[in-house]
Amino acid sequence: MVHVMSRDEPQNVYDEAKFFAGYSRLERFGREWGEAYEHPGFTALLPNAAAMRVLDLGCGAGQLTYHLAQAGASEVIGLDVSDRMLHVAMTERADPRVTYMRESIEGARFPAERFDLVVSSIALHYVEDYIHLVQRIHGWLVPDGVFVFSTEHPVFTARASDDGWVRNADGEALHWAIDRYGEEGLREEHWFRDGVQKFHRTLSTLLNGLIEAGFVIERVAEPMPDDDMLRRHPDWVDERKRPIFMLVRARKAA
Amino acid sequence: MVHVMSRDEPQNVYDEAKFFAGYSRLERFGREWGEAYEHPGFTALLPNAAAMRVLDLGCGAGQLTYHLAQAGASEVIGLDVSDRMLHVAMTERADPRVTYMRESIEGARFPAERFDLVVSSIALHYVEDYIHLVQRIHGWLVPDGVFVFSTEHPVFTARASDDGWVRNADGEALHWAIDRYGEEGLREEHWFRDGVQKFHRTLSTLLNGLIEAGFVIERVAEPMPDDDMLRRHPDWVDERKRPIFMLVRARKAA
Repeated sequence: MVHVMSRDEPQNVYDEAKFFAGYSRLERFGREWGEAYEHPGFTALLPNAAAMRVLDLGCGAGQLTYHLAQAGASEVIGLDVSDRMLHVAMTERADPRVTYMRESIEGARFPAERFDLVVSSIALHYVEDYIHLVQRIHGWLVPDGVFVFSTEHPVFTARASDDGWVRNADGEALHWAIDRYGEEGLREEHWFRDGVQKFHRTLSTLLNGLIEAGFVIERVAEPMPDDDMLRRHPDWVDERKRPIFMLVRARKAA
Repeated sequence: MVHVMSRDEPQNVYDEAKFFAGYSRLERFGREWGEAYEHPGFTALLPNAAAMRVLDLGCGAGQLTYHLAQAGASEVIGLDVSDRMLHVAMTERADPRVTYMRESIEGARFPAERFDLVVSSIALHYVEDYIHLVQRIHGWLVPDGVFVFSTEHPVFTARASDDGWVRNADGEALHWAIDRYGEEGLREEHWFRDGVQKFHRTLSTLLNGLIEAGFVIERVAEPMPDDDMLRRHPDWVDERKRPIFMLVRARKAA
């Protein structure tokens, strides 16, 4: 079967100086990676990585890749399309068991049953052909292998505008506006630059794609800040109003 | 373990004359049941019911109960809390293989492994203790038994107001407003009467509850009107903007 992408190649905004400058100021980029409010929810989904061969799709600056190597993985391949991000990863998060690889998620090729664990942290919404991707991941995993990922939540990607919030005259978020949930596909948004390309998929597309590929859904999470987080980050108060991330742990049926 | 309900007893609005008069005018109540736009999505999730012992939780006027008896089920128990609804069911949809039973979903008691199939059509959002309910359903099913249900979608139950839509001056729906997604629990709304009680649960609560009870998620659906439906029902145009129903087929692990 010939797989035709409707884009010539995946967008790579992380290698653009302006985008990278903006992104690299985010708390989650640097040492505060573990402070991101979905972080405890994500790590709670991870299996014990000891002795596992791991693939991290869209590894960015390598925080998760490095974390899994530190957790005892025998090998972690961190794959990302962005040279700038990989430069940070290789400079700050090198490890004898880690290999950083410059490649798009769409372009990744691995032998069958190459990995025990595949992870991906908030990268899959950049991928146009999700169905084909999860089929490929399924093939790369050994039987009983685990796939843990976070992605932007369908409620978030279905938003009506760049902002998403409907605000009052004081700029306070009143509610999150949805008006295109059933319309899957490309969403361009302003995020440090115009035209950042992400893909909206419904919840049922995300879950049924996994199930049809041969995965068993083991856990779904929609992390929101708890009271303790809100005390430390009062600016996160709106994050309980609507979910921004959806996390899944799925297992390849043995 | 003693299970304590925080309501004295489940609400039974369907037995109130004013609510019933309103509800019974809905297209889905009568012969148009099969015209509801989630209907094809729901029936697509049903297994071949031939020779199955079936329980229909919240059977209302008995359309689904009767449908499954006609589809060859050996026995269908239709359970509902409303005398008025059951009166319609027994009058219009009697069948030798059907038993209608007046009982709340919360109050239902059956022996272990009593059923091959449990179904429920848009009733579970009335139930306060979803987690306990799915555990009970799991117990009532034989190994490899199937549970198919529709419920109001978390995006729908998370809505900010009775209406949910933010409208322009002409009354047109601009977008669906979410502002309490993370706040699970009671939602009172005006639907033919004030104070109709429903329960908001997140997507992850709905799915993880099934998984933790011992179910395997086989399919999730969020039906929306297709083009053909929109030609017949132009007033459904806003139903693609946000999902109102979530449907699940889950199987008790053998």
